[in-house]
Amino acid sequence: MKNKAITSRDIDFAKWYTDIVTAAHLASYSNVKGCIILEPNGYAIWERMQQELDRMFKETGHQNVAMPMLIPENLMKKEGELINGFAPEVAWVTMGGSKQLEERMCIRPTSETLFSDYYSTVVKSYRDLPLKYNQWCSVMRWEKETRPFLRSREFWWQEGHTVHSSQEEAEKETKGMLNIYRKFFEEYLAIPVVTGKKTESEKFAGADYTLTIEALMYNGVSLQSGTSHYFGQRFSKAYDIKFLNKNNELEYAYQTSWGVSSRMIGALIMVHSDDNGLVLPPKIAPKQVVIIPIGNDEKVMENTNRIYNELRESGISVYIDDSEKSPGFKFAEAEVNGIPVRIEIGTRDLENNKISIVRRDTREKMLEPTDVNIVNYVKGLMKDIQNDLYTKAIERRNNQTYECHKLEEVEEIMKNRPGFVKAMWCGDHECELSMKEIQGTKSRCILENAEHIDDKCIVCGKNAKHLVLWGIQY
Amino acid sequence: MKNKAITSRDIDFAKWYTDIVTAAHLASYSNVKGCIILEPNGYAIWERMQQELDRMFKETGHQNVAMPMLIPENLMKKEGELINGFAPEVAWVTMGGSKQLEERMCIRPTSETLFSDYYSTVVKSYRDLPLKYNQWCSVMRWEKETRPFLRSREFWWQEGHTVHSSQEEAEKETKGMLNIYRKFFEEYLAIPVVTGKKTESEKFAGADYTLTIEALMYNGVSLQSGTSHYFGQRFSKAYDIKFLNKNNELEYAYQTSWGVSSRMIGALIMVHSDDNGLVLPPKIAPKQVVIIPIGNDEKVMENTNRIYNELRESGISVYIDDSEKSPGFKFAEAEVNGIPVRIEIGTRDLENNKISIVRRDTREKMLEPTDVNIVNYVKGLMKDIQNDLYTKAIERRNNQTYECHKLEEVEEIMKNRPGFVKAMWCGDHECELSMKEIQGTKSRCILENAEHIDDKCIVCGKNAKHLVLWGIQY
Repeated sequence: MKNKAITSRDIDFAKWYTDIVTAAHLASYSNVKGCIILEPNGYAIWERMQQELDRMFKETGHQNVAMPMLIPENLMKKEGELINGFAPEVAWVTMGGSKQLEERMCIRPTSETLFSDYYSTVVKSYRDLPLKYNQWCSVMRWEKETRPFLRSREFWWQEGHTVHSSQEEAEKETKGMLNIYRKFFEEYLAIPVVTGKKTESEKFAGADYTLTIEALMYNGVSLQSGTSHYFGQRFSKAYDIKFLNKNNELEYAYQTSWGVSSRMIGALIMVHSDDNGLVLPPKIAPKQVVIIPIGNDEKVMENTNRIYNELRESGISVYIDDSEKSPGFKFAEAEVNGIPVRIEIGTRDLENNKISIVRRDTREKMLEPTDVNIVNYVKGLMKDIQNDLYTKAIERRNNQTYECHKLEEVEEIMKNRPGFVKAMWCGDHECELSMKEIQGTKSRCILENAEHIDDKCIVCGKNAKHLVLWGIQY
Repeated sequence: MKNKAITSRDIDFAKWYTDIVTAAHLASYSNVKGCIILEPNGYAIWERMQQELDRMFKETGHQNVAMPMLIPENLMKKEGELINGFAPEVAWVTMGGSKQLEERMCIRPTSETLFSDYYSTVVKSYRDLPLKYNQWCSVMRWEKETRPFLRSREFWWQEGHTVHSSQEEAEKETKGMLNIYRKFFEEYLAIPVVTGKKTESEKFAGADYTLTIEALMYNGVSLQSGTSHYFGQRFSKAYDIKFLNKNNELEYAYQTSWGVSSRMIGALIMVHSDDNGLVLPPKIAPKQVVIIPIGNDEKVMENTNRIYNELRESGISVYIDDSEKSPGFKFAEAEVNGIPVRIEIGTRDLENNKISIVRRDTREKMLEPTDVNIVNYVKGLMKDIQNDLYTKAIERRNNQTYECHKLEEVEEIMKNRPGFVKAMWCGDHECELSMKEIQGTKSRCILENAEHIDDKCIVCGKNAKHLVLWGIQY
């Protein structure tokens, strides 16, 4: 039985995606153009993401702060590349109350400028360094199109901004944070990612270089899922962040920034979910288990409460759906919402001393004895689901990754069965532009330390410098 | 020995306050006029507040969501009183990128309009109700003056917005949330509060009525610390939120909203802290215990690590200060930062099998045997500190609360030793305005169900209706 509120993903992927967003009550369009509302189910996933990432950040010595949401135009302009990159897409505040402002301010599209300005006032000596700060907030970019979680004017994210006394330490931070993102995607979201370096034309405005994690969605479209930037001394020179080094000389500081956003919820949908609704990896699901009592005789309620208490006490996030809806409705709702494990407790099963356990990912139903060690069973099952989702995602990603040696191959792939394409590149921007003509194919990242698959650039045939991952992007 | 970076609070309270904010690294002024930066120590306190309140909200059936940060002017204008109340103090976005917007939007000063607009699209039947949503965010009000935590253009808060199928249920929610705030202040912040209802002129723009918790600061100035509003059907009528009730009739819904903000950090400072810096109640302190090893011989480090591990494993938030600073410097720093318990482990004490334990609130130093059950000891000590801070705050508040029967008494008090004044009021706004002429004395709240202390209004002498709490406010 298919959920009627959801278009099949093989028929219309874009429609399927927005159907899931709506049916699972993740987000809603608002009457504020280009902005979405995170509804309880969507926000709860964002909270779980925040919890795990925040723990990982703190374990690696980062501290949270909060910067203003507005940036005066002058402050924004100090670093040339940044303002050029972001000026066309910021929202400008020009009035406070009924008064015209002397200087307009933009709502932060990102906060390098604010952090750098702050660091310039507090950094004096190498003893003050490193400062490793992060903030959780929303930012605003004046996009034209809206696609919930993937692209909207306002989105929620974290932005880490660090300042160091040496290039080596800052570069280590840049790599270290990318590694945390990779780990989070693999271990919590069960999404495999490719890591690499952005090309010059795809890097963050103002960065020396940008590292990225790239994931592949069910439909073969790639999603830039997290980035970590090394700034060198660009911002420290523009914002005058100097410290007295160990030789008692003034030196410009070395900086990084890194971020992931509510876009990750979009990735969860497009990698794991199916025509019956959301599928969530147990390690990130806000609610891991639902118990649905069928009928309300004493034995049903007794077993329901016993199992609920045992699971809850073991730290599993569990709830009972004892609303007045029909069992069938409750099953479908739990499926749409992506609850990883469903336990059905009914009179008939109980007569045979059985309960039913259904896993959301495969929809497989198991009949188990009522005296099964439920905590061990559910923990084992959740581990299996988590692993299976990851394995399935890797297999699909690998099946959709192609090595190409000729442009015609790329064209054939991107037109008929898009995915990741690995191909050699000479390093010229012209060749990137030529690739873009093929269905908008863009470089996702340079695969560093990867074995070259050819000597020549796939576009111009000149000597190749890098093995590059290419894809059609969201 | 007094901390030299901090002005004495009895000499210059305002200067003392900002000295604490700076010396304890709670917040910093930014180059964005009217906006502050929450530094790591300040943000960590805010995170602790969020954790406890968020738990209390969720335990009472509330869910978190995120609404857009912008409000189109038309949406803002639908409820007349609200726009009149907030229009003079909002920031207007008039441009997106390089284009003038067709309709300007304000940065949310509060989000009743956005929640109501959303509720109008999702509420259909009494079966959908109640919806009890909350969001954690920052809001913007174009204030002229800045006082860190107490008043700034941008501040951080939570705003709960709920919608119900009956007046009774909505009023119960309004009272219930006020009660959660009261409990949080008393049990976590160790700050006693007076609860009551705002007068017509002091209530929230657009509310039927506003309930409030009011706290008294060390200098006798009162601080509105949290409010809970009952809206009746005002917003549901303006935003068209109708539901089919049990009689199958369309009915306008009943709404509430309630909020507390980063202002609470200001209250913590002004109620508990002293000339040596911040004093934090252990139940809200991000770091509860610091261990300072003096010297680094084997026995010192052995005991330091043992005690650290024991405390940490018991769930106490503890850290070791093994930086290169001098012990005296570390002691002062722990004091300024308000770490509730300091454990000093030094060679000389250890020769007598002793360690030193210092409580921040009284600065009392205890010598204890090295084999003291450190977990029980510290837990007991933290409980004592928490209780003592609360008792001391209540005593001071009571000593600064006066019953007045004549205006001259109010004048004498507010001029020389301000505090809370209890006095009778006839209910006329004119009399409130007269009180304001006395040092800006304002009604804090109507003390409902309180025994009247007089028959006549303290201002006009006409028949009194209410016992009112008055004060000078932040």
